[in-house]
Amino acid sequence: MQINWEKRFADRASRINSSVIREILKHSSAPGVISFAGGLPSPDVFPVEDFKRACDVVLTEAGPDALQYTPTEGFIPLREVIADHSASYGIPTAIENIQLTSGSQQALDLLGMLFIDPGDYVVVENPTYLGALQAWNAYGAKYLTVPSDEDGMRTDLLEEQLKKGPRLIYVLPNFQNPSGVTLSLERRQELVELADKYNVPIIEDDPYGKLRYFGEHIPPVIVLDKKLHNDMGDHYHGNVIYLSTFSKLLAPGIRMAWVIADMQVIQKLVFAKQGADLHSPTLNQMIAYEVGRDGFLDEYAKKIRAVYKERLEVMLDAMEEHFPDGVRWTEPEGGMFLWVTLPEGMDADELLPKAVERKVAFVPGRPFHPDGSGKNTMRVNFSNASPEMIREGIARLGVLFREEMAALAVP
Amino acid sequence: MQINWEKRFADRASRINSSVIREILKHSSAPGVISFAGGLPSPDVFPVEDFKRACDVVLTEAGPDALQYTPTEGFIPLREVIADHSASYGIPTAIENIQLTSGSQQALDLLGMLFIDPGDYVVVENPTYLGALQAWNAYGAKYLTVPSDEDGMRTDLLEEQLKKGPRLIYVLPNFQNPSGVTLSLERRQELVELADKYNVPIIEDDPYGKLRYFGEHIPPVIVLDKKLHNDMGDHYHGNVIYLSTFSKLLAPGIRMAWVIADMQVIQKLVFAKQGADLHSPTLNQMIAYEVGRDGFLDEYAKKIRAVYKERLEVMLDAMEEHFPDGVRWTEPEGGMFLWVTLPEGMDADELLPKAVERKVAFVPGRPFHPDGSGKNTMRVNFSNASPEMIREGIARLGVLFREEMAALAVP
Repeated sequence: MQINWEKRFADRASRINSSVIREILKHSSAPGVISFAGGLPSPDVFPVEDFKRACDVVLTEAGPDALQYTPTEGFIPLREVIADHSASYGIPTAIENIQLTSGSQQALDLLGMLFIDPGDYVVVENPTYLGALQAWNAYGAKYLTVPSDEDGMRTDLLEEQLKKGPRLIYVLPNFQNPSGVTLSLERRQELVELADKYNVPIIEDDPYGKLRYFGEHIPPVIVLDKKLHNDMGDHYHGNVIYLSTFSKLLAPGIRMAWVIADMQVIQKLVFAKQGADLHSPTLNQMIAYEVGRDGFLDEYAKKIRAVYKERLEVMLDAMEEHFPDGVRWTEPEGGMFLWVTLPEGMDADELLPKAVERKVAFVPGRPFHPDGSGKNTMRVNFSNASPEMIREGIARLGVLFREEMAALAVP
Repeated sequence: MQINWEKRFADRASRINSSVIREILKHSSAPGVISFAGGLPSPDVFPVEDFKRACDVVLTEAGPDALQYTPTEGFIPLREVIADHSASYGIPTAIENIQLTSGSQQALDLLGMLFIDPGDYVVVENPTYLGALQAWNAYGAKYLTVPSDEDGMRTDLLEEQLKKGPRLIYVLPNFQNPSGVTLSLERRQELVELADKYNVPIIEDDPYGKLRYFGEHIPPVIVLDKKLHNDMGDHYHGNVIYLSTFSKLLAPGIRMAWVIADMQVIQKLVFAKQGADLHSPTLNQMIAYEVGRDGFLDEYAKKIRAVYKERLEVMLDAMEEHFPDGVRWTEPEGGMFLWVTLPEGMDADELLPKAVERKVAFVPGRPFHPDGSGKNTMRVNFSNASPEMIREGIARLGVLFREEMAALAVP
C-alpha cells in the first residue's frame, strides 16, 4: 500500500512549513524585476580571487586533511581568527567559547533544540527576524513580543514579558533585520540587567555589526553582560549567547558562522551539532581561515561599507524624492535593510503583486510580526541592487503608493 | 545573577549527549596507536588534485554565484549527476525526488524531526549505526530491535516488531556499519512487503553501496519497493527513503550527501532544511558537481575498491593467523568495517584500555546495541590503516585476546 505521508509525519511536522520570504522570492526574481525583497549581499564585491587563491593554498598545504572528517568544535586557527576579530569589538574571548556553525541559521536551530520545549515562550522584538521564527516554530515556541522604535526594542516594556517566564530573549541589536534600527546603549544596558534579574539567556544575533556606515559603534550586549558579571578571566561566563557570521563579511555561499557563549552552552551545542551534521565542512573552515586571516576581514569590511553606504544614501534620497507624504521609513546607520510604514489602512500584502507587475519587489512586513500586526509595513533591501536600479525601483514604488493612496482616499 | 545553565536547558536537552565513539576516538588517536576505531576513509586516495582543479574551474566559471545564497533543494547539475549515478544502481529517479543534505547525518536528523515525536518507536537492526541513534535520541525515539546474522536483519523476526506500531524502519542493507553484513535479496524482498503491509516507511541508509569487493550487487530496497508499487513513471512514489553520500565516494570533508524519496517527503524535508541551515554550501555543491561529473564517481570507486579490498583481505588473513579459537568475525563483501565477537563473558569495554596501552584501538560493540547487549563484541575498521599497520595491529590484538582468555579461563 502506498503510504499516506501526511498521516505518517510526526505531530511536530505540522509546524514545519516554507518560509514566506522564500515564496515571495520566487515571484520577485522574475527577469527585469528590480528586487528589494531578498537579503542578499552584493555579489559584485565578493572576493572571488581571494577565494580562488585560498582554495589552492588549502588543498596544496593541507591536502587530504582538507577533505577528511574533523572535530565538531571547528578548525582551531579559524576560531583564533574569530577570537581576534571579536576582540576588535571588545569581546575578549577564548577559542573554547567559540563553536562554528553552518550559517547562523544552524545556530538558531541548535539553540532552539537546546532551549525550547513545545509551548515555551521566547521574547522577540516586533518585528523580528523570520529565520529565527522558522527555526523555533519547529520546536513549538510561542512568542512574547516587545515593540520597537527608532532606538530598537522598547526595554521599558520588556519586564512585563519577562514576568511570564520566557526561556530566551532574542534580539538583533545592530541594524536589525527587518527594521534597520539599532538598539541604543542605554537600552542594551537595561536589557542586560533585566535578563540578569529574571535569569533569562539573551541570544544576541549580530550578522551586520561591522556594516556601520554612520554614527558610533555601540558595545555588543555580550560585552555589557561581561562587565555586569565582572569577569576578569579569559573565558566568557555570562548570560549572552552571541551569534555572528561570515555570510556578510566574506560570502554566504560557504555557510560559515559562529556562536560565542558560556562553555556550558558550547558543550551542549557541540553535542547537538554532532547529531545534526557532525561538523561543518573541513574545506570551508580552512578556506574561511585562509581568506580571513591577517586582517583581511577588516579590510574587506571597509570595501563593502563604502559600497553599501552609497546604496543606502541613494535609497534614502530617492525615498525623500518619490514617496508621498504619509509614508515613513527608518534611517538605518548600517546593515542591509530599511523599513517602510505606509499609512494605516494600506496593506503591503495586497500591494506586492501590483508592484511586481511594475517590475519592482519588496517583502510585506506582516510575517515578521509574530503577533500578526504590521499589515501596512514592508522590508526594503538596499545592498543587492545597483544605485541606478535603486533610484528606478524607488521611483516606481513612489508612483504606486500615490495611486493606491488616492484610490483608498488615504488623507 | 549568573545563569545556572543546567536548569535553563529544555527537557529535550537532557537527551542530547556526546557520541561514545567521539570519546573513544579522542583516546585512540594518541601518537603511535594503530587505530581500527574510526570510520575514516583512507586519505591516501582522496582526489586532492581533482578538487584543486574543480575549485579553480568553479570560481572562474561561476564566480560570485559560487559564493552566494542558493535554493535549499540543491544545485540542479549536481542533482543530475546523482540521478545518473543512482540509475547505474537501478534507481531510476528524477531530480525532483532528490534533496541534498550536509552529510547523511543531516538527513538522519531532519528525518527524525519529521517523523519522530517523543516516545515513538523506530525499528533498527541490532547492532545499528550509532549516528542514527544519536540523531534520533534528541527527538525522544524509542527503539525496537531486530537481531542480525550473516544475511543481515532477521526479517522473520520483523513482523512482531511491526505489530507494535513503529514510525520508521531503519536499515543499512550493504556492508552494514557496524557489522559489515549485507542483507540478502530474499530478506530485502520480505522487508519491502512487510513495510508495505504495515504501512511503515523504510529509511535505507546506503553509504557504502559502491564499495563492493566480493560477490554480486543486490538491488537496493528502494528498487524492490518501486517494483512492488509498479510505478512506471519517472518520479519515485513509494515507501522507501533512500540515503547516500559523497563522503565515501569523493571525500567526507565537503559534507555532501543526498536523500531520494517520494516528493511529499522531499517537500517537507526542504522546509525542515530551510529552518536547519538554509542550504548546503553553494561552493561545495558546485565543487562536488565539477569533481563528480562525466563518470568520475565510477572511476574513482574502482580505485578505492582496489585499495580497500586489499586491506580487507589482509585483515581477514591476519585474523585467521592471530586470533585464538573462540573468537569469531564477519567476512564483509564490501564497506569499511568488520565485526568481532569474543567468547561469552569477555567485555570489550574493559579490553579497550588494555588495547590502547598496547597501541591498538577498536570500538566496543555495546553502544551500537539499543537493547544494551553486545558486551563481547567490537567494531573494527579496515579502510584507514595501511596493510602493514593492519597486520601489526591485528597481531597485537591476537596476543591480548589470548592473554585475556587465559586469565578469564575462557575455554
